[in-house]
Amino acid sequence: MTIELTQNSYGKSAVRFGKLTRHANYHDFKEIHVNIQLEGDFTTVYTEGSNIVVLPTDTMKNTIFILAKQHAIETIEDFGLHVTQYFLENNPQIEQVTVDLQQIRWERMSLDGSPQPFTYIGGGNETATAKIVQNRSTAAAKASSGISAMRVLKTTNSAFEGYIVDKYTTLPPAADRILATELTAVWQYAQTSESIDFQQVRNDVRRNLLAKFAEHHSHSVQHTLYVVGEAILENVAAVSDIHFEMPNLHYIPFNLKPFGLENDNDIFTASGDAFGLISGTVRHIELF
Amino acid sequence: MTIELTQNSYGKSAVRFGKLTRHANYHDFKEIHVNIQLEGDFTTVYTEGSNIVVLPTDTMKNTIFILAKQHAIETIEDFGLHVTQYFLENNPQIEQVTVDLQQIRWERMSLDGSPQPFTYIGGGNETATAKIVQNRSTAAAKASSGISAMRVLKTTNSAFEGYIVDKYTTLPPAADRILATELTAVWQYAQTSESIDFQQVRNDVRRNLLAKFAEHHSHSVQHTLYVVGEAILENVAAVSDIHFEMPNLHYIPFNLKPFGLENDNDIFTASGDAFGLISGTVRHIELF
Amino acid sequence: MTIELTQNSYGKSAVRFGKLTRHANYHDFKEIHVNIQLEGDFTTVYTEGSNIVVLPTDTMKNTIFILAKQHAIETIEDFGLHVTQYFLENNPQIEQVTVDLQQIRWERMSLDGSPQPFTYIGGGNETATAKIVQNRSTAAAKASSGISAMRVLKTTNSAFEGYIVDKYTTLPPAADRILATELTAVWQYAQTSESIDFQQVRNDVRRNLLAKFAEHHSHSVQHTLYVVGEAILENVAAVSDIHFEMPNLHYIPFNLKPFGLENDNDIFTASGDAFGLISGTVRHIELF
Amino acid sequence: MTIELTQNSYGKSAVRFGKLTRHANYHDFKEIHVNIQLEGDFTTVYTEGSNIVVLPTDTMKNTIFILAKQHAIETIEDFGLHVTQYFLENNPQIEQVTVDLQQIRWERMSLDGSPQPFTYIGGGNETATAKIVQNRSTAAAKASSGISAMRVLKTTNSAFEGYIVDKYTTLPPAADRILATELTAVWQYAQTSESIDFQQVRNDVRRNLLAKFAEHHSHSVQHTLYVVGEAILENVAAVSDIHFEMPNLHYIPFNLKPFGLENDNDIFTASGDAFGLISGTVRHIELF
Repeated sequence: MTIELTQNSYGKSAVRFGKLTRHANYHDFKEIHVNIQLEGDFTTVYTEGSNIVVLPTDTMKNTIFILAKQHAIETIEDFGLHVTQYFLENNPQIEQVTVDLQQIRWERMSLDGSPQPFTYIGGGNETATAKIVQNRSTAAAKASSGISAMRVLKTTNSAFEGYIVDKYTTLPPAADRILATELTAVWQYAQTSESIDFQQVRNDVRRNLLAKFAEHHSHSVQHTLYVVGEAILENVAAVSDIHFEMPNLHYIPFNLKPFGLENDNDIFTASGDAFGLISGTVRHIELF
Repeated sequence: MTIELTQNSYGKSAVRFGKLTRHANYHDFKEIHVNIQLEGDFTTVYTEGSNIVVLPTDTMKNTIFILAKQHAIETIEDFGLHVTQYFLENNPQIEQVTVDLQQIRWERMSLDGSPQPFTYIGGGNETATAKIVQNRSTAAAKASSGISAMRVLKTTNSAFEGYIVDKYTTLPPAADRILATELTAVWQYAQTSESIDFQQVRNDVRRNLLAKFAEHHSHSVQHTLYVVGEAILENVAAVSDIHFEMPNLHYIPFNLKPFGLENDNDIFTASGDAFGLISGTVRHIELF
Repeated sequence: MTIELTQNSYGKSAVRFGKLTRHANYHDFKEIHVNIQLEGDFTTVYTEGSNIVVLPTDTMKNTIFILAKQHAIETIEDFGLHVTQYFLENNPQIEQVTVDLQQIRWERMSLDGSPQPFTYIGGGNETATAKIVQNRSTAAAKASSGISAMRVLKTTNSAFEGYIVDKYTTLPPAADRILATELTAVWQYAQTSESIDFQQVRNDVRRNLLAKFAEHHSHSVQHTLYVVGEAILENVAAVSDIHFEMPNLHYIPFNLKPFGLENDNDIFTASGDAFGLISGTVRHIELF
Repeated sequence: MTIELTQNSYGKSAVRFGKLTRHANYHDFKEIHVNIQLEGDFTTVYTEGSNIVVLPTDTMKNTIFILAKQHAIETIEDFGLHVTQYFLENNPQIEQVTVDLQQIRWERMSLDGSPQPFTYIGGGNETATAKIVQNRSTAAAKASSGISAMRVLKTTNSAFEGYIVDKYTTLPPAADRILATELTAVWQYAQTSESIDFQQVRNDVRRNLLAKFAEHHSHSVQHTLYVVGEAILENVAAVSDIHFEMPNLHYIPFNLKPFGLENDNDIFTASGDAFGLISGTVRHIELF
């Protein structure tokens, strides 16, 4: 018996940069948070304490700021591709680079309908995310994109009935309940990254997601997850598969009976306790 | 020498309710988080362990849900006034009731410009807040209102220069810097609460705040605080004074010199470290 | 009518420093987080955008690191006193300095009973806090000290009965319940700060707090608050008054009846929902 | 082309229970937080909105409380095994159950060296974790155990030198630096779960981890990770492999040169900005 290092990875997290681009009539401001992880043959770093192949995480941080300077930032996906390419090209000891990116929402401030040239307002928790993985031995970088912390809520057209009732069941069926979630979505692309208009795909995914969430009649969170994913796959050709995580934000009717009042499905506790968590992935498959 | 209880207060925090109101063509959904604290002659509760004058915090929670059922929820201020009045009227042992309210932002979902009747989307961290204090021995409840966690950012028209330079100064002056804050504001009213249109005042405060923040040329966070407060006092007659807390969200130019590059005031570190914190209150005063 | 700045304050928050002191046989490591706020005649900074009396918050930060270098750090109170004195002595425009300090718990690692000379382990959320306020026009600095985030729990000798029952009551009385809180305490001193052994007082307060919490039979959180405060005032002469905030961490018996089981007061939900919040202050008073 | 559900999982998160066991001379109190996820052939739940095979997450929650009532809670691993077994035995539609458990640290309060019978004190962020995965089609449940949020710090015997220097390097080498991390560890077992003394293994892993962290001379976080993992594998036979995540909590020497002072490696900024993140897994391998 001996001892082996079977997995290793290192990098820098929470590299947070802002980039300001001055246009003739307005300023564009973007804030992006980046995590980077490198893999490669770093075994002796761990086993022998030798640092000769180590690119310090501090240098990774510097490099990300320099790349932010050198490249226009159209989308986080495009910027992530610059990052993975740079590290592979300049560091032969690296086998794979993984970059996670998150765009902090700053929205152009609007006053009485007119956008302000130099002022932004924070746009909430919902953020655009992306992940780029590039491996030296494979031809192309692999991009995926996502949305995190999008809160959505339906006040009707949502039920949960017909489930298993066993000796430990106390939940009553609900023909009309509030459905709310703070969803995370991550999608993969059918094409190679060079040919993708990431912003356009993101807009299309988001619009289909919201429209289907609003329109459909939900039988369960699982059902909603599938129906929304199906709509995206049917309408956004660039997406090959999409994964969702949907925590169930419970709005539970408060029991008013002890007080001689009827809860007409109108007064809810927004619970901070145990919550349902549903996940699923839908994808296109080819039929022969 | 003896021992005295000099201050006491008790209540329930984090009472989180949702209320759904079904209109003909759409549903109105509001989520409100409430903290309540009672004061009065509760000394023997502490000193003797006697509970005969204690209204349990669990009962306070029940009561808030019942009041939410019984009253239309126009604004958090109006609802808070119902809460303080109820407790004073029904509990002679209580001298003062303080209610803090926060409205969670759920915005009607809009698809291709048309609002959806039954679907909401989370509206970010910025929240409306209110505080109602009502004392049995004074005539009227005292309302104050606020905004918390509003993030705003200017990409230009902001400087910080001409400050004291001493032996421990390293900060360079900035003629053109990013100014960003996540502000908290709390305002008091010139009138008694019965006559106030709380929603209208809130809209007016917010619009003036954003417009002045966008328009003015800032010499410091302090200067911005004052100018914004002044604009609100001048334009919103119902407001007697307004208090701000403005943490300075630092976007610091990243030093690109070691790499032979110039930072044209375009690449910034979004720092999570030590931050400036500025506060101030401005009010109307009468001159004779 | 005109407009007046009625309150102003500015400073630096989250100045986080570590200090390492190398002794012959071991290293002492302390981590302290500091917030500082200055008050004085800064009106024109706000009203006119003039910075000539502004000591930048960045300079405050530098200064705190320099003071950490120059002074041995015995307690956060002693260090805070150096900070307030320095700023008043060197900045005539400042009228009052307020410093909030928090000591992050790093405990000497112990292995098989022997303390390690150079290794520390994180000691949990409970932290020592202090606040020093020094005003130019009064003789002495005013120190207060505290504990934050101390979690304590009693599995018995705690009841809550005999309270008001009204039409909205659903809480059953409990003769034997779990009592748990995450308490904050802040105490003032009877003496001037020069003559206080802050570490000794802190040790005495903490030991009396824990001993009385463990020993006494609680009738309510309010009762516990008073009994604990009384014990501290009786046994720690240096303390003139002590304030507590005690959120009630609810451990609620889970209803097992629907499943044909009896909850023998042994299975609890640790709730994350609405919680009771109790505060009170006890002090010595002189009787004539 | 058609659409397929390729992954699905659902369950309940944040089921938080306390269990009180009354012994003759003292009370044992444990608080455990549980997440549970079920997998199986739930496709029609998603694709057709049919709930006939759905065990509601609310029922999962009830069941966990009932199992907590019925079983003595020795370790979170043992309890997790009861949970996975129960769900597989009682729900033929389930193919796999995954349970994540976390034990909140409540430590018996000690006063002047003597443990108190009925009083606990919060023990900090460091928590014991476990994960049990049981699949219907394989013989045995798979247990892994872990530690989360353990903060450790070395004041010396840590260096970082000899790394790659490229055009974007600014980090100076350090012969003697503070090394600090808030580590997560997860280990797998060499044996089947029936024969494991989980508490004993946990104690042994923790003791070896701390002892080696204290004793060794670190060349990098990577090096420390390996050396600690190696010590555990060599000394704790039950562990087959162990995975670590080690964020680098940066304590960076504050630059005192501008003020005519020397930083003798004694004054540090505890940075909240970008941080290094190192991971690795070490395991036993058999050699033939």
